[in-house]
Amino acid sequence: MVDICLLGTGGMMPLPKRWVTSLMVRYNGSGLLIDCGEGTQIALREKGWSFKPVDTILLTHFHADHIAGLPGFLLTMGNADRTDPVTVVGPKGTTRIMQGVRTLAPELPFEIRVIEIGAAEETFHLNGMTITAFRVNHNITCYGYEIAISRGGRFDVDKAKANGIPLRFWSPLQKGQTIEFEGRVLTPDMVLGSARKGLKIVYTTDTRPTASITRHAENADLFICEGMYGEPGSEAKARDHKHMTMQEAAGIAAKAKPARMWLTHYSPSLVKPELYMDSVRAIFPEVLAARDGQDITLTFSDEE
Amino acid sequence: MVDICLLGTGGMMPLPKRWVTSLMVRYNGSGLLIDCGEGTQIALREKGWSFKPVDTILLTHFHADHIAGLPGFLLTMGNADRTDPVTVVGPKGTTRIMQGVRTLAPELPFEIRVIEIGAAEETFHLNGMTITAFRVNHNITCYGYEIAISRGGRFDVDKAKANGIPLRFWSPLQKGQTIEFEGRVLTPDMVLGSARKGLKIVYTTDTRPTASITRHAENADLFICEGMYGEPGSEAKARDHKHMTMQEAAGIAAKAKPARMWLTHYSPSLVKPELYMDSVRAIFPEVLAARDGQDITLTFSDEE
Repeated sequence: MVDICLLGTGGMMPLPKRWVTSLMVRYNGSGLLIDCGEGTQIALREKGWSFKPVDTILLTHFHADHIAGLPGFLLTMGNADRTDPVTVVGPKGTTRIMQGVRTLAPELPFEIRVIEIGAAEETFHLNGMTITAFRVNHNITCYGYEIAISRGGRFDVDKAKANGIPLRFWSPLQKGQTIEFEGRVLTPDMVLGSARKGLKIVYTTDTRPTASITRHAENADLFICEGMYGEPGSEAKARDHKHMTMQEAAGIAAKAKPARMWLTHYSPSLVKPELYMDSVRAIFPEVLAARDGQDITLTFSDEE
Repeated sequence: MVDICLLGTGGMMPLPKRWVTSLMVRYNGSGLLIDCGEGTQIALREKGWSFKPVDTILLTHFHADHIAGLPGFLLTMGNADRTDPVTVVGPKGTTRIMQGVRTLAPELPFEIRVIEIGAAEETFHLNGMTITAFRVNHNITCYGYEIAISRGGRFDVDKAKANGIPLRFWSPLQKGQTIEFEGRVLTPDMVLGSARKGLKIVYTTDTRPTASITRHAENADLFICEGMYGEPGSEAKARDHKHMTMQEAAGIAAKAKPARMWLTHYSPSLVKPELYMDSVRAIFPEVLAARDGQDITLTFSDEE
């Protein structure tokens, strides 16, 4: 199972009652954070989740509402006794940004490893998750992220026996190893049932609608998308600022058909996103105007 | 008159119910901020004071809880349409720190002028205030600040006439000019009554008690001082971390005799500073365990 929390839902700047947009994903003992604006560490503390397991930070782009919380967040991770390395993934320039961050937070008891995304689309395998960064369309280079967790088949005793696999190879084969034995090549599929449905989470903010978003959001279990404006007539403003309206976001979901969608990254001028949800739900019904701290636990189909 | 607000009272890191320590002073249309940690911009917004008049930022030292909010604070000042320059005063290295800040906040519509303090004590004249930085004793270079506003005498018509000052020199002399006229040197004191009492605010955090603090806090109208710990037996911890207890802070005030004192910069472990105030008041009675947003308007004696 995967725990997901949208720590904040604001865009542009933190407000007294709204943190800036940031996502935390907990899976298999590790924590992944997407973006870290000013106050994200306080939002995580309010949620009551631990800082220590955060080992991966994905950055969408370098506007301050997405990165200005990094010095304080990393220092608080250090104060929580983290000593294992942290991987930071982001657009070209992430190394330079992290140098700026280290000017403000020079003393950290763990190593920071930076991965800069070079292409329009790039996939990383981290902690059992397949993370794909895909370029979106903002006024500076910006990426959305797909987090996919695949789920192999269960161990099948009958199949292992039928394939004549000696007992001592059951465990390594189940763990994914391939073994040569007495002239045969033994492979994991000889002891496993068919693969089970995995989970897919897709996250994107600070962008106009793009084909890349629609493609990645297809059949996602959770699609988190910016909806900067909601009021009628805000389309031109959204185009000018390279953002999208809540209705445009729902239009992506109507094509991609995720199981559910959360809207986030509201403009400071958008005080009550709920006001516009009737028109949004008319486009895609399974949509929620997310609130700070919104969370969900997604379970694999065979866990239910 | 001078408006003063302690925007936060925390040390080390921002907490859900406590911003990190930062002070704002409004005088004569300009705004002065001491330190800017993560969330200080939200604290100022909660207070309802404007960002735009802030033209001076004093930094005590470079620990993140005192500087990590600068990128977001400066960007929000830019969004509030500030275009006039902002002066940042801090220890040696402030230029380098501001370069790090600018990595995270590259686009600002105003110039930043940096003044690095070179000596153990240094005085600056900014916006009608006499600001003295004085070295204190922390585990990195750290300064306290005295903000003094002097108050010249009133214009005295009888005195000007008695001194035979021609009418056309009254205004320039009142404004502080010295004038040579018909072999005489005309000075401001020839048209002004005796100087009136000014105001003095002294601010220091992140330090052991020092003689420099006592000296500056003497007869201050408001003395704001850290009190990191309060519980009995915390003196050794305070010494080790180069902080002070609430009782040690009160000991400084007992010698310096300010009109009033506010404690701040509480450890995250110090949840209820009020619990220890009986023992603190026994040392210096005019002391308050300040809360986030604590404010006061100090008036000149002749305004009352």
